[in-house]
Amino acid sequence: MLINLLTLNLVSAIVCMAAFSFSAKAQQKKKQPNFIIIFADDLGYGDLSCYGHPTIKTPNLDKMTAEGMKFTQFYVAANVCTPSRAALLTGRLPVRNGMTGGSTVLFPNSAGGLPSSEVTIAEVLKEKGYQTAIIGKWHLGHLPQFLPAKQGFDYYFGIPYSNDMNGGKYPPLPLIKNEKTIEENPDQTTLTKRYTDEVINFIKNNRDKPFFLYYPNNFPHVPLFASKGFKGKSKRGLYGDVVEELDWSVGQILKTLKDLKIDNNTLVIFTSDNGPWLTQKEQGGSAGLLFEGKGSSWEGGTRVPMIARWSGVIKPNQTTAALATTMDLLPTIVKFSGAKLPSQELDGQDISAILKGEKENVRELVYYYSGTHLYAIRKGLWKAHFTTKSLYSKEPAAPHNPPLLFNLENDPSEKYDVSKKHPEMVEEMKKEFDRHTANMKVGPSNMEEKIK
Amino acid sequence: MLINLLTLNLVSAIVCMAAFSFSAKAQQKKKQPNFIIIFADDLGYGDLSCYGHPTIKTPNLDKMTAEGMKFTQFYVAANVCTPSRAALLTGRLPVRNGMTGGSTVLFPNSAGGLPSSEVTIAEVLKEKGYQTAIIGKWHLGHLPQFLPAKQGFDYYFGIPYSNDMNGGKYPPLPLIKNEKTIEENPDQTTLTKRYTDEVINFIKNNRDKPFFLYYPNNFPHVPLFASKGFKGKSKRGLYGDVVEELDWSVGQILKTLKDLKIDNNTLVIFTSDNGPWLTQKEQGGSAGLLFEGKGSSWEGGTRVPMIARWSGVIKPNQTTAALATTMDLLPTIVKFSGAKLPSQELDGQDISAILKGEKENVRELVYYYSGTHLYAIRKGLWKAHFTTKSLYSKEPAAPHNPPLLFNLENDPSEKYDVSKKHPEMVEEMKKEFDRHTANMKVGPSNMEEKIK
Repeated sequence: MLINLLTLNLVSAIVCMAAFSFSAKAQQKKKQPNFIIIFADDLGYGDLSCYGHPTIKTPNLDKMTAEGMKFTQFYVAANVCTPSRAALLTGRLPVRNGMTGGSTVLFPNSAGGLPSSEVTIAEVLKEKGYQTAIIGKWHLGHLPQFLPAKQGFDYYFGIPYSNDMNGGKYPPLPLIKNEKTIEENPDQTTLTKRYTDEVINFIKNNRDKPFFLYYPNNFPHVPLFASKGFKGKSKRGLYGDVVEELDWSVGQILKTLKDLKIDNNTLVIFTSDNGPWLTQKEQGGSAGLLFEGKGSSWEGGTRVPMIARWSGVIKPNQTTAALATTMDLLPTIVKFSGAKLPSQELDGQDISAILKGEKENVRELVYYYSGTHLYAIRKGLWKAHFTTKSLYSKEPAAPHNPPLLFNLENDPSEKYDVSKKHPEMVEEMKKEFDRHTANMKVGPSNMEEKIK
Repeated sequence: MLINLLTLNLVSAIVCMAAFSFSAKAQQKKKQPNFIIIFADDLGYGDLSCYGHPTIKTPNLDKMTAEGMKFTQFYVAANVCTPSRAALLTGRLPVRNGMTGGSTVLFPNSAGGLPSSEVTIAEVLKEKGYQTAIIGKWHLGHLPQFLPAKQGFDYYFGIPYSNDMNGGKYPPLPLIKNEKTIEENPDQTTLTKRYTDEVINFIKNNRDKPFFLYYPNNFPHVPLFASKGFKGKSKRGLYGDVVEELDWSVGQILKTLKDLKIDNNTLVIFTSDNGPWLTQKEQGGSAGLLFEGKGSSWEGGTRVPMIARWSGVIKPNQTTAALATTMDLLPTIVKFSGAKLPSQELDGQDISAILKGEKENVRELVYYYSGTHLYAIRKGLWKAHFTTKSLYSKEPAAPHNPPLLFNLENDPSEKYDVSKKHPEMVEEMKKEFDRHTANMKVGPSNMEEKIK
């Protein structure tokens, strides 16, 4: 009887320990959050209903805003595609990581790509046991040695560069799965649907593991394509159709997270790689009240929509004017995941305190590069333009000495140069320019070499 | 015993009938909804957070949007103050009701005002036993025979014209209560607070009666003034401070309605009298992605924010691109209140079906007048400019034949003239122009005469 009781106690103790261990494991699992970054292509600051567009319907992104946080002063690190993507994934200014110089972006005949020495969000999270995938547009090198598999991604499905980079001297547009081309010139009207299927599958397959999903959709970059269910449906024409299908895709993702009951353990970020491609006229987007678009160092070039949602961590219905950039995502994800910061010099800053509502601001400075050249600097509410030139304008680059000075919080459309009213700020901004450029180690360009 | 029983039955029958009659009365009371129209002055399409402004915080209006319906293609009938207000209150184009011609708006030395033959929303509702008040800026005649009391308002408190119309040749700015000037040059920093107090008092005093409250705040018209609690608080400078105080005022109104449990019986409309006064630079607002502002027939002149809230009738979180105008408020209010339409020729159309979510659109045409001249017409998604000239530009009026043609749903910023691509629409719009102007009975101007 005594033995029996002891045995019973022992058994119950073991059961208890097992239960504890299981629960601790579940707890730990729960503590490793998932990360999803949805990256639109050429979507402007003014192109979503929740950012004021009158005729593009984006109910899912509007709802994401209502359930999360909308950023109104969020920037990408470059006003064109390739360097902007390099910056997002590495937390570094593109001028450091070789993704500037030589050409504005990588082309199908480019031999270069993001150097393997660069550490991406995917690599950082792999160290913590994350499953990683990219579904969509890579644009950081399409030769085998530069594909996503070489930068920490377990899985890749997508077009490796822009959806207009075919025809003429270029080969057919490849659709790549992992490291192999599985189709040429895929039907782009089905692209967002196929990407969405891939995204949903990846989430479902990894519902019990921590994952990082990077979903850079090729749209609304021209040429524009929407599927049957969306084509001709938007009041905003084909551009609107495409954005509304993208909005649908976001809705599918959020629905999947909720259905799987992992939305309270998943940070979802939605943003865009640069401003609208204005020279495409009706086929291009809108920067809303901001001046200029893609290819420009005016606000329309690099200030983009950004919505963050994480049920239980980010309070619903928040709007923040905090300064933040795509480069901040790497250190923020490192913070939330408990991963280790890479040893490379970072330009990103941890914005987890902003997301959690603990701080109003963490960042003071934003740099506006065009290629390897620093064109403008934002410091707090001030922005100084040292050079202005739009990639798509025929006007030559205009240097400004003293720089043009704008109070961006008061004058977001950059209409009223106040450099004469604030000579002290002009001096301070010049010092910032000198300080930044003197300390900058420009990485050797990996964008120049062409495939022979 | 029998008698007693009968008596008891009789008593209970009487009690029962009384209860029924009381309940029926309550029911009937409940069926007469209240109407509140909040009218900002010179607030632009892009000046609220929910319409995409990056640095003006408008949490109360954002919440009103989340609880109601946001209009993205809502127009006033004139691009300046006086005729816009006349149109809102009468449901008629200002060219009919004498509030055009002679001068752009009424000035302190004007002898005219809205003719007494014109029927206002207040007069229509008085017939149904409503309590009516206007708190704020009248601007439809400040001589005794033109004051609100002569147009169906039981109560008036406010400045009878624009807040900059003093100094120089003009008398001190009057603050009027009913028909008497109670102060001269009131402290404008306390104006929104005082208006709000008046508004709240009116609502509280009439909680058990059906009421119509018209609250045309004088701001953010320049000169800008904010109270201590708001001055210096906004990132957008003084203009932002003023809009944020206006947002606060709206929040107080909505809170009062909820506290009194009459928010499910009250239609609240928030809108603005015309686009932003761009020549005031940082002191003026923003039309967002729309071109131009106050005084112009480009979209920025007359397309304004509009938010409608009515708990239980308007579904939450709706965005509509329906065409609608301030002139539609009169017939819509008539519909909801069971009042009688005035016999005067109306330009407004009942939009109750849009508010209730039963129809997507009811209006097809929008007219852009500058004074007595028809400058442009919108028909569905098309807009034709027959003349372009901004009130504040030195450029002479530019007639266009053929008219400039824009697809406003596709190109809300009016960048791409498509008149050459769509000659059939150009012809149709010319016919609309002829049809409208041929049938228009221009009312004799009541804006010309000056006080001797």
